[in-house]
Amino acid sequence: MRVGGKSLRTIWLDSDAASVKIIDQTRLPHQFEILSVTDVSEAAHAIKSMQVRGAPLIGVTAAYGLALAMRAEPSDDNLDKASAILAATRPTAVNLRWAIEAMRKRLLAIPSAERGSAGFAHAGALAEQDVGLCQAIGEHGLALIRSAGARRGGRRVNVLTHCNAGWLATVDWGTATAPIYMAHDEGIALHVWVDETRPRNQGSSLTAWELGQHGVPYTIIVDNAGGHLMQHGEVDLVIVGTDRTTASGDVCNKIGTYLKALAAHDNGVPFYVAAPSSSIDFSIVDGITEVPIETRSPQEITHISGVAGDGRIETIRLAPAGSSALNYGFDVTPARLISGLITERGVIAATREALARAFPERIGKQP
Amino acid sequence: MRVGGKSLRTIWLDSDAASVKIIDQTRLPHQFEILSVTDVSEAAHAIKSMQVRGAPLIGVTAAYGLALAMRAEPSDDNLDKASAILAATRPTAVNLRWAIEAMRKRLLAIPSAERGSAGFAHAGALAEQDVGLCQAIGEHGLALIRSAGARRGGRRVNVLTHCNAGWLATVDWGTATAPIYMAHDEGIALHVWVDETRPRNQGSSLTAWELGQHGVPYTIIVDNAGGHLMQHGEVDLVIVGTDRTTASGDVCNKIGTYLKALAAHDNGVPFYVAAPSSSIDFSIVDGITEVPIETRSPQEITHISGVAGDGRIETIRLAPAGSSALNYGFDVTPARLISGLITERGVIAATREALARAFPERIGKQP
Repeated sequence: MRVGGKSLRTIWLDSDAASVKIIDQTRLPHQFEILSVTDVSEAAHAIKSMQVRGAPLIGVTAAYGLALAMRAEPSDDNLDKASAILAATRPTAVNLRWAIEAMRKRLLAIPSAERGSAGFAHAGALAEQDVGLCQAIGEHGLALIRSAGARRGGRRVNVLTHCNAGWLATVDWGTATAPIYMAHDEGIALHVWVDETRPRNQGSSLTAWELGQHGVPYTIIVDNAGGHLMQHGEVDLVIVGTDRTTASGDVCNKIGTYLKALAAHDNGVPFYVAAPSSSIDFSIVDGITEVPIETRSPQEITHISGVAGDGRIETIRLAPAGSSALNYGFDVTPARLISGLITERGVIAATREALARAFPERIGKQP
Repeated sequence: MRVGGKSLRTIWLDSDAASVKIIDQTRLPHQFEILSVTDVSEAAHAIKSMQVRGAPLIGVTAAYGLALAMRAEPSDDNLDKASAILAATRPTAVNLRWAIEAMRKRLLAIPSAERGSAGFAHAGALAEQDVGLCQAIGEHGLALIRSAGARRGGRRVNVLTHCNAGWLATVDWGTATAPIYMAHDEGIALHVWVDETRPRNQGSSLTAWELGQHGVPYTIIVDNAGGHLMQHGEVDLVIVGTDRTTASGDVCNKIGTYLKALAAHDNGVPFYVAAPSSSIDFSIVDGITEVPIETRSPQEITHISGVAGDGRIETIRLAPAGSSALNYGFDVTPARLISGLITERGVIAATREALARAFPERIGKQP
């Protein structure tokens, strides 16, 4: 997508092929900085510290991490070691393990002497595959926004989104944002309600930033406000992302997604999940009982960073000193609340049957 | 309630009767400062700037504001002028108009020479009346927590609350917190999930502070987390406050309350609203269409204040420069989602019939 008027991806191999470049997303929206990742521990750090985040981008970063490890030492042992380091960074994201397994399968099948260059080729192919997935999701989702636009008779379509399932969470386009960018690019009058998405504010920092850079009109709201807007007809559809989708269509996504799904259901607002098939875990069915939900640092709740009056990035404490806080990263939205899953193969019902029909080759297989 | 080991109220007439004392709640939880309010414009400023907040405390502050105005100049004209200044501070809170009208009725009925002292007596009586209301609500709500405790077989009862319908929002005890303080004081094992309550974080600042001062165990969560906790059986009951309750039992409260009510309903968690009768507006029925919802400054979303590393209170910007934000202060929870209203006359159903039965003298009257 566009940043400062130029087209850019979120991860790319440097022109000298010596390092992988990423955008340090922990500094957005206040600073735009490109980082070099030169070995597997830097790749793991980038994932764990959320310099890169979003299920698809995490997967591609892990793939490049393995490529960097294979260039350093292409043994089976080192592949195991690098895989373990990368897999331990974020326990919930299924794309992480999916990308690692896809890379391992390819790398183990070839002689170690070839793994140095093959790793980058395979990681690059995974990146291209993700761009293709997002484009397909964008086209299927675009049809939903076109219909909403037709129902609105030309008045602007209001889309609500939560967290950042945007360009920044993928290699390009985003998942939940792909239909939004395509609709905007084809001239549909469109406006996005951006949930700030506490505690890390990926909405008010990342989604607001990337929509603004691309020129899409948006308004930031607190996570508490979506229900009120839906009660008053101010939301035409909701599109969110997913970190993990179960075989029955339950969706594990950023904490608070479930509350927006309840509000959408209560007010008859269509609630769609942009779900690339890489997010679908056919080995689990019941999201609420089967998906482990990571807890993150309580400091993400009690403290926050932003730009002080003098331009410095400052971290301040919000809560009384010594307060305890509990910080679940995700929640599960039951399939019954979801109007449809926007996959790369079309918009399908969030049901076991529809998922099995759309992805027959995945049934009975590990993700 | 207790602050630093001492009993305190949130508003009181100074011992020399020259000024009214309040706690500057905009400085909590980081600084504890007592302010003097000496005239009607300071009283209006205290309400508008949220140095005092919470429907009951706003009402009592307005009453003292009229008393101060009458001491300065006890004419009918000045009473009208002072009433208009105070009524314009916060358009949503019904207690504000209720307290102003109660004061006006009493003050207009007596000779202007007597209004100077009578104003303080009447305002003091309103304060005492509020303490009595909160105590009665506490006792009725305590029975609900006792029952939850019995169902839990001695394991701690987890109560979720939103915003601050606490001691700090009233003169003493609080509304939603009164049952919590009473249960804690009688030794029931109890723990409170405190919604941080964006954008002004009255939960993680005020509710956390006052529970901590009184010794009640609590954990701060982001507003997004309550649904997840309810899905996993971690919430035994929800108790929130109300800024305005309609004749049919709809509840207008801090933005985001509706989302918690939806989650409670979806998970079979009892959802109670501590509703002093002063919050009930029998002149309106449908909360969603009839209650005007105030919008507040977008800066409350895009910027936030807290304690920097060096101890200074610092305001930082969270969102990209120039972002637009929309900041509704309240939402409406439909009566169908409410398990009961905890009033000073007992716990009653959130229905037109139950409200009319409990408060027959109010039917057909202005609030």
